[in-house]
Amino acid sequence: MFCSFFFLFSRIIPPCDPTADDRLYHICITAISLVVMLILAVLARRTKVGDRQKGLPGLLSPVNFLDHTQHKGLAVAVFGVLLCKLWGLIISPNPLPFTTDTENKREDWVILGVLYYPALYYPLLACGTLHNKVGYVLGSLLSWTHFGVLVWQKIDCPKTPLIHKHYSLFSSLPQIACLAFLSFQYPLLLFKGLKGTEKNNATEDLSSSYYKDYVKKMLKKKPTKISTSSTETPKLPQRIIDAIKSYIYTPEEAFRFPPKLAISGVVSFITLYQVGLLLISAVVPTLQTARLGVDEDIANLLAGFKIMLSPDKHEVVRIVVYYMWCVEVCYISAMTLSALVNLAMLMRSMVLHRSNLKGLYRGDIYNVYNCQRSIRASRPALVCWMGYTSFTAAHIFIGMIIQTMVFFLCLLVAVFLIIIPLLHRQNLILFQILLSMWPFWLMILLAVLIQHITGRFCFIKKVAGTRDLNNRGNLFLLTYLLFPVNVLIGVLLAVWRMIITALFNIVHMGRMDISLLNRNVEAFDPAYRCYAHYLKIEVSQSHPVMKAFCGMLLQSMGQESNAAQRSRDAEEGIQLVQQEKKQLKVSSAKRARRHWQLLYTLVNNPSLVGTRKHFQRQTAESFLNGSLKRSTKEGSKKESGGTACVALSSHPNCV
Amino acid sequence: MFCSFFFLFSRIIPPCDPTADDRLYHICITAISLVVMLILAVLARRTKVGDRQKGLPGLLSPVNFLDHTQHKGLAVAVFGVLLCKLWGLIISPNPLPFTTDTENKREDWVILGVLYYPALYYPLLACGTLHNKVGYVLGSLLSWTHFGVLVWQKIDCPKTPLIHKHYSLFSSLPQIACLAFLSFQYPLLLFKGLKGTEKNNATEDLSSSYYKDYVKKMLKKKPTKISTSSTETPKLPQRIIDAIKSYIYTPEEAFRFPPKLAISGVVSFITLYQVGLLLISAVVPTLQTARLGVDEDIANLLAGFKIMLSPDKHEVVRIVVYYMWCVEVCYISAMTLSALVNLAMLMRSMVLHRSNLKGLYRGDIYNVYNCQRSIRASRPALVCWMGYTSFTAAHIFIGMIIQTMVFFLCLLVAVFLIIIPLLHRQNLILFQILLSMWPFWLMILLAVLIQHITGRFCFIKKVAGTRDLNNRGNLFLLTYLLFPVNVLIGVLLAVWRMIITALFNIVHMGRMDISLLNRNVEAFDPAYRCYAHYLKIEVSQSHPVMKAFCGMLLQSMGQESNAAQRSRDAEEGIQLVQQEKKQLKVSSAKRARRHWQLLYTLVNNPSLVGTRKHFQRQTAESFLNGSLKRSTKEGSKKESGGTACVALSSHPNCV
Repeated sequence: MFCSFFFLFSRIIPPCDPTADDRLYHICITAISLVVMLILAVLARRTKVGDRQKGLPGLLSPVNFLDHTQHKGLAVAVFGVLLCKLWGLIISPNPLPFTTDTENKREDWVILGVLYYPALYYPLLACGTLHNKVGYVLGSLLSWTHFGVLVWQKIDCPKTPLIHKHYSLFSSLPQIACLAFLSFQYPLLLFKGLKGTEKNNATEDLSSSYYKDYVKKMLKKKPTKISTSSTETPKLPQRIIDAIKSYIYTPEEAFRFPPKLAISGVVSFITLYQVGLLLISAVVPTLQTARLGVDEDIANLLAGFKIMLSPDKHEVVRIVVYYMWCVEVCYISAMTLSALVNLAMLMRSMVLHRSNLKGLYRGDIYNVYNCQRSIRASRPALVCWMGYTSFTAAHIFIGMIIQTMVFFLCLLVAVFLIIIPLLHRQNLILFQILLSMWPFWLMILLAVLIQHITGRFCFIKKVAGTRDLNNRGNLFLLTYLLFPVNVLIGVLLAVWRMIITALFNIVHMGRMDISLLNRNVEAFDPAYRCYAHYLKIEVSQSHPVMKAFCGMLLQSMGQESNAAQRSRDAEEGIQLVQQEKKQLKVSSAKRARRHWQLLYTLVNNPSLVGTRKHFQRQTAESFLNGSLKRSTKEGSKKESGGTACVALSSHPNCV
Repeated sequence: MFCSFFFLFSRIIPPCDPTADDRLYHICITAISLVVMLILAVLARRTKVGDRQKGLPGLLSPVNFLDHTQHKGLAVAVFGVLLCKLWGLIISPNPLPFTTDTENKREDWVILGVLYYPALYYPLLACGTLHNKVGYVLGSLLSWTHFGVLVWQKIDCPKTPLIHKHYSLFSSLPQIACLAFLSFQYPLLLFKGLKGTEKNNATEDLSSSYYKDYVKKMLKKKPTKISTSSTETPKLPQRIIDAIKSYIYTPEEAFRFPPKLAISGVVSFITLYQVGLLLISAVVPTLQTARLGVDEDIANLLAGFKIMLSPDKHEVVRIVVYYMWCVEVCYISAMTLSALVNLAMLMRSMVLHRSNLKGLYRGDIYNVYNCQRSIRASRPALVCWMGYTSFTAAHIFIGMIIQTMVFFLCLLVAVFLIIIPLLHRQNLILFQILLSMWPFWLMILLAVLIQHITGRFCFIKKVAGTRDLNNRGNLFLLTYLLFPVNVLIGVLLAVWRMIITALFNIVHMGRMDISLLNRNVEAFDPAYRCYAHYLKIEVSQSHPVMKAFCGMLLQSMGQESNAAQRSRDAEEGIQLVQQEKKQLKVSSAKRARRHWQLLYTLVNNPSLVGTRKHFQRQTAESFLNGSLKRSTKEGSKKESGGTACVALSSHPNCV
């Protein structure tokens, strides 16, 4: 139904069969991918007994979403390709190229495609997992094949009958870009592997210097700012500059985004591009065609509805064409505005993600969530974490469509009721209505002015730096006398409230990192709830300080036991920590040093305490609690004041 | 235009001229009111030299909006009458009864009416100000006249052609009730005055026991609750019970609403009644008339639009009548639902007003405003305070209209797409569409189930009371594979977000005490901004503890100087405090006692400090600041944890 709608409006373009037939290509590439996976599996089994410890399990989890330091490029590119394919799947009348008569069971094919494409592109991810030259060679070949065939198809058939002749070409641009990135990245990795310059550190998450740098920066004493009095609000220009600055993302040295957020960012951007492209190419060509097709029959048609634009038929055609051009301009402006708004929101989201993550690392739970929450893994949190990237894309999609519709309507109203009447000096209906109400507006204006002026000069007196009420009697009298006028002002205010609320929510529809609801019921907003849960998993599982600590422990252990038991992953590190006690022959001096490191780290990162209850519970609890409380109290004053609230107020509406 | 619309739909009812002609009545009553005011003025001048100290200025400010203890009934009733008159002014085609040809300059008459009616009802308020028997007699006579003429007119002409034959009668019921209250209250006051039992204490604000009771209750030690761990969230049934309880207002002993809030409550209730009445009487009779007027012509008319409901014409009439009845039921249900929702919101607002006021008295600025603000009088705060009562009425008005429209549309959709098809087992279009999409729903359901079940049983392990991730490899794999499905789930989630946000905002449209925007931009909501400002004035100017303190000072002074300089009003009390130092012959023991009282009061009420900077600035500042900081720190832990944040974080978006 969705597609037939588009077909209806597109001009007839002969269906084009590319030389690289899609059906044949898919059958071949599926077979090739299967072979590649088998080779990789064999390779993995062989290398498992060697010095690499990942092996087959590693092949089954090619992306570590909780690892800040790995090279995120591969994962981001594959997710980008996958999203483009999903998009094509939903738009295209022929979701999977395996059969020809898909008109009837299109939906079933879409469902199959939803499961098929992730599997198809899986080898592209898996080839990079083993850090093996064979893997890189296979990856290069595979990505070249994908890239080559896609480009070949697009050169063969740049025009398709779907939606608009060039829609298909433009729609596949992000996919081509992602595949090109992969085709370039795999050879680069192979080259580095051959030269032996591939940094093992970059892949060995825990021994990466990033976490240590983060800890170092965190422990560094900040220069104490000369804080102005907290009751003084900053001035207006400063506030505007601050607001604009908060929308511009500038990278920071000692902070990297978690992979899920990086993927979400790219996925959001691709969604934005695709939705924008669809909105433009589905409507604008149709409008243009209609505009070019206007002839003198339109005058007769309008006369049938008793609309007489002009006695001259040529004039009628001219007017109708002009109005249609206006509609077109409005639509394109609305779409552009929506895209720009979403881009700004994307930037703002990144700024907010960073500050939220850093806040939670620091333990500022109250500032981020506005209530007390326990930062630990739970079932809903895990489900939200799994879906977060997808949900961002979906929200941008819905948000852009709604924004375009609303902006389009607003622009139409503005153009046809305000701008065109003003330009042509006729049909000034709106202005006439407003003008005929001038006594009303005058009364409103006077009432507001009277209240503000008397409020400023009569009813407030300044005594020794503070302000107090004056002339209470007259204040009460004025309040009583202006009661009916204020009701009328209140109606205007209520309408304004409605407009501003609707506009804010529509503009921020695509953002999951803020709630669109009131602060007491924030958790009822499903998107924000999901984001809040997502942050929980991210912070509880990949806290940089925890990772630095685990890395440090592994390092010191490695010095003792010849690095044989070195472990690549964070979870193994944590397990090692758990087994720490069982380790033999740890000198008491070293144990003391470790205890000290542990305590120091935990004292500076209260949010880590939740993750370590399950060991050393009995020994250090009372001592730690004491020092943590102290540190929380001090930290809250030093940093941002949020943490002091943590233990004190609880909120029934919290997630 | 608004009125002619109503006229069009109302059946012809002969215009009715009451025996008590409105024009004559208004001329007479204006003259009488003028005479009453003159008598009161003469009386005020005479009593001024006597023992009463209010005199003429008191006559010009009959309501003290900042006085918690005065009898609020008179003010509430007069505001109710005024609102009903304003409502009639806007609805009626003949806003003021002084001229007959008002068709042309209706708007100008409305503006005149907006200024005329507050003046007309002013004497009803002023008669009670002097606490004089003559005043009460005049008040009784005036209110009897108003009441009698109104009732006489309504008995004479129960039916009017305006909107609906009984609309005018029902619309004046609140006005009659308010006037009846006044007619009863003035004789009661006179009777009490004659018997000498009129409690002077009740009118003498500062010496009222209310403030002392408030202070006593506040200083009383609360039984320490056995607090559960703050990280534990209460269970679901408990949370539901708490949520329902928070919507039910139960009066508390030691707390009285400020007069402005009491007036706002009654004004909101009257607005709710009037809007509901208008919505019902403007639409339902018309629908009923249309339904009764359906005959077999409708079959021909529908056939003209090529709609064939049935081959039998009688059957067509039956179906059309049935559908129209359904529309009627939907409309009435929507209106009732909207009225009930607004009633619930009114109750909830009262609960919230109380908790906000008590919180601010306590100094919990952060909990109420979510940021740091200075609680003191300012120009915008004063303007918002003046308009608050009117704005509440306007917001309920707009809120109810929007709610009724939205609920009506939703109910229409529900009835015609779900209920009627289900009842008649035909036209099940919606169900057919949903059913034809069953593979899609199944996929979505399965994906959600898989994520929840694996999240519960595979990926989370419980170790020693805490939960941690398990099987990370498989978690990452599942996350990757379910990415496309999750995008589709995300679309559903985004639609749900849109619905829930819109519904929440529409339901809470009439409430000014919560912001409809996100917590960081709360102040952009004009209604909430107004409420926040209103609270500032209310708390800074009528803090019960401050009043108790002023009362205590006046009392002790009165004991010394024969109560000659006793002052009735809070502001005079404060001025006396300012002059305190200039007072002679205060023994050092008494001065010490007063200092101690002052310090004790201020230490327990940090929010009062702002109001006293302008005296004793040099002497006690450093000492007080120290003790206040300590008390804030302790208080925050004891009470609710809000205050600790106060001094620590500042928000650029705060009002």
